[in-house]
Amino acid sequence: MKLLDELVGMLGRQYVLTGEDAQSYLVDWRGRYSGQAIAVARPGSVQEVAELIKWCVANKVPVVPQGGNTGLCGGATPDDSGTALVLSLGRLTQVRSIDTDNDTMVVEAGCILQTVQQAARDADRLFPLSLAAEGSCTIGGNLATNAGGTQVLRYGNTRELVLGVEVVTAEGEIMHGLRGLRKDNTGYDLRDLFIGSEGTLGIITAATIKLFPLPVAQCTALVGLRSINDAVSLLSNARKGFGPALTGFELIAGACLHGVVECYPQQRIPFEGESAQLPWYALLELSDSESAEHARERFETVVGDAIEAGLVVDAVIAENISQSKALWHLRESIPLAEKTFGKSIKHDVSIPVSRMAEFVETTNAALQTYFPGIQHVIFGHLGDGNLHYNIARGSQYSEEQLLGMQDAIYELVHESVYQFDGSISAEHGVGQLKRDALPRYKDPVEMKLMRRIKQALDPHGIMNPGKVLASRK
Amino acid sequence: MKLLDELVGMLGRQYVLTGEDAQSYLVDWRGRYSGQAIAVARPGSVQEVAELIKWCVANKVPVVPQGGNTGLCGGATPDDSGTALVLSLGRLTQVRSIDTDNDTMVVEAGCILQTVQQAARDADRLFPLSLAAEGSCTIGGNLATNAGGTQVLRYGNTRELVLGVEVVTAEGEIMHGLRGLRKDNTGYDLRDLFIGSEGTLGIITAATIKLFPLPVAQCTALVGLRSINDAVSLLSNARKGFGPALTGFELIAGACLHGVVECYPQQRIPFEGESAQLPWYALLELSDSESAEHARERFETVVGDAIEAGLVVDAVIAENISQSKALWHLRESIPLAEKTFGKSIKHDVSIPVSRMAEFVETTNAALQTYFPGIQHVIFGHLGDGNLHYNIARGSQYSEEQLLGMQDAIYELVHESVYQFDGSISAEHGVGQLKRDALPRYKDPVEMKLMRRIKQALDPHGIMNPGKVLASRK
Repeated sequence: MKLLDELVGMLGRQYVLTGEDAQSYLVDWRGRYSGQAIAVARPGSVQEVAELIKWCVANKVPVVPQGGNTGLCGGATPDDSGTALVLSLGRLTQVRSIDTDNDTMVVEAGCILQTVQQAARDADRLFPLSLAAEGSCTIGGNLATNAGGTQVLRYGNTRELVLGVEVVTAEGEIMHGLRGLRKDNTGYDLRDLFIGSEGTLGIITAATIKLFPLPVAQCTALVGLRSINDAVSLLSNARKGFGPALTGFELIAGACLHGVVECYPQQRIPFEGESAQLPWYALLELSDSESAEHARERFETVVGDAIEAGLVVDAVIAENISQSKALWHLRESIPLAEKTFGKSIKHDVSIPVSRMAEFVETTNAALQTYFPGIQHVIFGHLGDGNLHYNIARGSQYSEEQLLGMQDAIYELVHESVYQFDGSISAEHGVGQLKRDALPRYKDPVEMKLMRRIKQALDPHGIMNPGKVLASRK
Repeated sequence: MKLLDELVGMLGRQYVLTGEDAQSYLVDWRGRYSGQAIAVARPGSVQEVAELIKWCVANKVPVVPQGGNTGLCGGATPDDSGTALVLSLGRLTQVRSIDTDNDTMVVEAGCILQTVQQAARDADRLFPLSLAAEGSCTIGGNLATNAGGTQVLRYGNTRELVLGVEVVTAEGEIMHGLRGLRKDNTGYDLRDLFIGSEGTLGIITAATIKLFPLPVAQCTALVGLRSINDAVSLLSNARKGFGPALTGFELIAGACLHGVVECYPQQRIPFEGESAQLPWYALLELSDSESAEHARERFETVVGDAIEAGLVVDAVIAENISQSKALWHLRESIPLAEKTFGKSIKHDVSIPVSRMAEFVETTNAALQTYFPGIQHVIFGHLGDGNLHYNIARGSQYSEEQLLGMQDAIYELVHESVYQFDGSISAEHGVGQLKRDALPRYKDPVEMKLMRRIKQALDPHGIMNPGKVLASRK
């Protein structure tokens, strides 16, 4: 109780949660991970975060930083020892400044991503990071996990959208690194070391992020394809023909679209006959700095050429914003439709684009050998080499059977990813979920250097122990 | 002699240079830094680099890695103790692979930048890194210093152009990190830690770099402006109007252009009357994925609007490639013209774009107060907030007087940069030149973490000691 009293002394009673009040912070949003903690601390300033960390060092209390608690790998959930402090950044919600001439904005870690997007839009600017959880995830969590999303093809991952960070170190010091500079070669890149480290090296409390001009128009097309190889060739042509105006290139298996319309009959696949029965489709998005007409014209030229070259079987180009939205809606409904068909086994993998076709063919075949009749639910950001390579039970297996097969399927897919020079975590991070798999697929020298860095920056081992790397004994 | 014999035993006599043969490796290309070494080792493979480092650890021999020896801060020159080994990467010149579907290329550290650009072009792709030394600098040196250059506005610094690195660590192990993935969230960002660390943490021996489609057309415009503030507003409008097709935005003081035509009478400023006497000019470059006509049309629209809004006084849009080249030639001739007017004091600084006008005004005024009559030679990459803020002696001072004032001018400018939240090294790095200034302008917590990382990754302190950070006693 001494520890709890001290926490209350530091923050005030209302910002130290225990019991029922703490519950939602101790379980991840999908209910897959749960743990215990001394309490949940909700500091109201960077200074309070720093004080808390100093207190944790002095009392040997492990810290689990938490943003919107929307992670997919258990990175923000404490273990069940009950010895840790969950440190929620939820009260650090200031947009500290917007500089439209410098195209930068300084935001605190607890800002909801959607709030950040809106603040940019209010200043006639775009902050392009966009992902399914944007209504509840925080920019701090996005930074901690180097989140990806749907705009990576053009704008990069979260890492590429950040110019500077403010960090409370594992010893409770404040690193003032909120520079708004596009060029700064004064020493080691500490910014990128903290980004993606999942709270295991320090706590990012604020960041200077990049803003972009809002596109004048966006236009979407859906094209039907005979193979992934054709999709890869089309991607190459589209990058050439559209340049950086190409902001999306999503690959979708035909079966996914059929699943969507089966589940949501009010949606429809905008093709007829043979064109509606193709094995693969691609959704392309253009962001134009001229006009909607110009975007459509560009689509007609580049997609027209691809049809003539035999790469594309059929194509629909949205004629207005609502048609564009309907096409995106098909894509976005896939995970929801997937859910209504029961539990599935999900993989967030990346593969060099050039090896994608071979990876899918080889892995599908291996899965059918060991788990005949299993169903493939394949879609993803082809432009980034990022595939959501998911497996559904189909009519062959029960939910229980699928769960029983889960570990073997994970292993088969991860081994295949490894063979094809891919990554077992493209955009979700490591957390607890993939921690023990990591040493198997990562270069041993990289693992060694990661442990050295952990030791150097978190000498007391209090920062989110057991995440990314196994705890030191 | 024992050490030398062992080196010869490892590499063969022809690849261990001493005496006259070593001389050009012991002085930087501008002759500002020189040192001594046991020898210059020229390993022919990554394995040999690793062996050499292990040997250096065993014999406590400091290592100075060297690429094309074109650095500007003395980062690749040994000290004068004669105890170090210069390790030249010049024989690691393989383009190991090109993957046009994945838009990546694997190159070894010793490849000349121009060779890398050409290899990309031969595969119908663009590798956009471009800088003055491209005919002799190596990609390894570009990586070690996170080089900038003229295309940063659109494509980013070297850091942003790299997906993976292969590194020989400070203990002679090989880190296999040549991934060709655009998304990979499996642990700490070691890649970006080595990039920009100037050979003080390990040796980058190869990299997987990003390729882009070649633009279909490029077009250039020169516009005359009344103030830096107008230039900043124009930059904002141009980013909005052109989107990512805007690949260059260079700010040039009127005095620089007049210096160029005075020095090279065959060149001319393409304006008449008042328009030729403006205080500032900007050079804009568009890279178009449609056609040269389209690029010109876009220029006419956006620059036309800026003239109507009173932001731009006058403008010339190139009508063909040779006119574009002539405009760029004016810009590129500034440093050469500068040289013919005698020694100058150069600063490679960055400032938030929004504070650029105020920085120049304040700093110019302070310099005139302390050094009346001194001349300002100001130009740079406004789009990146990167200014070459140079000082010439004019007719007021002799070369000797200027040199005598040098340290005071450095300090005045750096202090001003600091006041305006800028960086004292935008793209050239730290090396020896700015090492001792760094702790004055960098956050003390950042300095502390940098030293921790140095200690963790280079525990024997053999990697390029005395560069970036002071050597440990």
